[in-house]
Amino acid sequence: MEIIKPRTLSGFMELLPGKQIQFERMVAILRDTYASYGFAPLDTPAIEDAQILLAKGGGETEKQIYRFQKGDSDLALRFDLTVPLAKYVALHCNELAFPFRRFQISKVYRGERAQRGRFREFYQADIDIIGDGKLDILNEAEIPAIIYNVFKGFGLSRFQIRVNNRKILNGFYAMLELASKSGDIMRTVDKLDKIGPDKVRVILTDDCGLTQAQAEEILKFITITGSNAEVIAALEGYTGRNETFDLGLSELKAVTANLSAFGVPEENFAVDLTIARGLDYYTGTVYETTLLDHPEIGSVCSGGRYDNLAGYYIEKQLPGVGISIGLTRLFYVLDEQGLLNSALPCAPADALVLPMTADPGPAIALAQQLRGAGLRVQLYGEQKKFKQKMAYANKLGVPFAVLLGEDEIAEGMCSVKNMVSGQQLKLTPADAAAHIRAALAANDGPIISER
Amino acid sequence: MEIIKPRTLSGFMELLPGKQIQFERMVAILRDTYASYGFAPLDTPAIEDAQILLAKGGGETEKQIYRFQKGDSDLALRFDLTVPLAKYVALHCNELAFPFRRFQISKVYRGERAQRGRFREFYQADIDIIGDGKLDILNEAEIPAIIYNVFKGFGLSRFQIRVNNRKILNGFYAMLELASKSGDIMRTVDKLDKIGPDKVRVILTDDCGLTQAQAEEILKFITITGSNAEVIAALEGYTGRNETFDLGLSELKAVTANLSAFGVPEENFAVDLTIARGLDYYTGTVYETTLLDHPEIGSVCSGGRYDNLAGYYIEKQLPGVGISIGLTRLFYVLDEQGLLNSALPCAPADALVLPMTADPGPAIALAQQLRGAGLRVQLYGEQKKFKQKMAYANKLGVPFAVLLGEDEIAEGMCSVKNMVSGQQLKLTPADAAAHIRAALAANDGPIISER
Repeated sequence: MEIIKPRTLSGFMELLPGKQIQFERMVAILRDTYASYGFAPLDTPAIEDAQILLAKGGGETEKQIYRFQKGDSDLALRFDLTVPLAKYVALHCNELAFPFRRFQISKVYRGERAQRGRFREFYQADIDIIGDGKLDILNEAEIPAIIYNVFKGFGLSRFQIRVNNRKILNGFYAMLELASKSGDIMRTVDKLDKIGPDKVRVILTDDCGLTQAQAEEILKFITITGSNAEVIAALEGYTGRNETFDLGLSELKAVTANLSAFGVPEENFAVDLTIARGLDYYTGTVYETTLLDHPEIGSVCSGGRYDNLAGYYIEKQLPGVGISIGLTRLFYVLDEQGLLNSALPCAPADALVLPMTADPGPAIALAQQLRGAGLRVQLYGEQKKFKQKMAYANKLGVPFAVLLGEDEIAEGMCSVKNMVSGQQLKLTPADAAAHIRAALAANDGPIISER
Repeated sequence: MEIIKPRTLSGFMELLPGKQIQFERMVAILRDTYASYGFAPLDTPAIEDAQILLAKGGGETEKQIYRFQKGDSDLALRFDLTVPLAKYVALHCNELAFPFRRFQISKVYRGERAQRGRFREFYQADIDIIGDGKLDILNEAEIPAIIYNVFKGFGLSRFQIRVNNRKILNGFYAMLELASKSGDIMRTVDKLDKIGPDKVRVILTDDCGLTQAQAEEILKFITITGSNAEVIAALEGYTGRNETFDLGLSELKAVTANLSAFGVPEENFAVDLTIARGLDYYTGTVYETTLLDHPEIGSVCSGGRYDNLAGYYIEKQLPGVGISIGLTRLFYVLDEQGLLNSALPCAPADALVLPMTADPGPAIALAQQLRGAGLRVQLYGEQKKFKQKMAYANKLGVPFAVLLGEDEIAEGMCSVKNMVSGQQLKLTPADAAAHIRAALAANDGPIISER
């Protein structure tokens, strides 16, 4: 037979079992946290009609998309979870209760240039709340509060959710009579962290055509820093000049006040006037999330408020607020940085039952009993020498091997071997289960360990 | 703005939230059961290099595949989870411990003709055990035992796992000197249930060219029925004439004996000599699973033993045994037949907290407290009239609404309204959580309710 060399496409993450178990732990925390806030799980097709998926059209996205024909159909793979959500809500709006809250943790596809840490197939973990016509500002605080609980659930504390409001930015640029240039300005301002204020000033005057005074005003504005109360106090100084600005500030104040009510500590969120999140889509509160010890990674969780989710599909006005975690990239980065807690067991089983007799019956029964006590148990059925059995247990990385020979069977016992310490105890099956569970519980901890 | 009418492609399942929650319950039972037997979760890309995916080549599958170019790459969507497993094991064989046990619950893609109950994107829920060179017969009993536990976990009891062994069939046809015709014969015999023995006899003689005596021998053989012990006793009568047959019978005896040891009751599995499962791939034990009250559905879970998983990718001999549930189709059928337990709550939240005051702070705190007690809680933040709030709770289908007005806040209480009975109780937050949890527990039950 001709052999074809196996490979996995570049830009596609495929994990070994231990890493996959770590990844699944993150997904489980996301699911549980999202569900605990009353979000419904959603699962839309990975393939959609290309006309529908690209209704918004245009730009970089369209170049990256996987698009193909099948029969007469013009098909495409989803490149995010927001467009499929818009389609879903437009299609099913009579059957949904609004506000409609959904989470979706699914793969999306972008045929980007392959690059280290960039993926062509990657998970997004999204939550959105969609209103019918209106949506209360309270939702704009709840969304980052949920993200706070997700990150805390991962074991992170050194992160910051940065919050801004597009109305504040739009209102501010309108005050300076720069509304028409706000896109260029925001793109420039976005580079502040990377290139510093002097270079930003030069681009604003030379490339964007601002006066020196306008550039100074903008730099003064975007470099407003301090505690959230201090930033808000500084913003108060601009009120009364533009309605949009004033509305944005009142929204920002409501969001920061409610974030505290949701139990998010001051150190984990910050008003940051440099955050803008693209140009058209977002209309109010916007979010980015950074790992404080790894600013070079950029935002690991972003989103915001939008006024019209599904305008391409339906006349109905559907405002919403949502946020998205690029899970595959986050996992890759955490792994690269050595932040995944290596003390957590990554074996597919808590215990490996090794029959030492010809008849596997007693070992089958023992394994079933240990499973009944809540353990993940693999029964090893191969006819191998003892040494090979133990080598397998070691390679698998199981924390415990449970040996069952003639003696143990006669006594109604089993021998429980701790694969790390080497300690071996003869216990009843019930005691063995309790012993293993206690050891696993003692070894439990967060998914991420910050150093 | 031009409106594009939203739609979901035909042959692609997209569920409303309540149904999605039912679907997720099935997935959770699959995951938990597979994991409890020490299978590692696996997640391979949906897109693979087309050359690799189609290494085996040929036939119906190739016509159904979604295949497309991106840049210079010839890509295809996976059409099952077995070929990606073969690639994965071949690629990573030095890093895996054998036997390698993995489960994968993922979507696969087949561009079949659209048809009621047929899907182009559907979930498969697979488990496989892969050996390096050898794999003990015990695994061939464990696989159906796990499936038994999955189906029991769903709440099914009226199902039967039907077991046969390809070596018995191959050996039997060799005895009749019909080895070269065994493919045609098996395809004919497979129709026995549908067309009856007389028509099978006619096809065997007229189309397959068998003598009347050979056809009689085959009909006599495949209509051997009775208890498993009776069928095996009848098969004993054929021993000593063909080595392959004798080996197959000894394997079948081991599998049935071990299935009992694994706790699978006699009524949930049956030796069935008509099961063949395709022609080339399987080499030993084969399985099909039928719902006893719905034989028209056909097999809902099939698989078997194979001798060479990854021969297209690697020289190494990798025998294995696996089984696959076509989850999307199974869910569709269960729903169609009204077998999904409608008594289970399908709302995204256990409780909807309704603030009755301008300041949402106390309601935020209450919602957080109820979540801390393990409940899924949605906070309703919209400024609406009481009647509209209750209408929302009703449409969402939440079992409980929790009202928090000035009075309740002053007393440190909340009003818990049972949305089904209408009963309303004023309770402390802790008592409210206990009350709701008790009601939910009382309402718990299996996913599937057989009638």
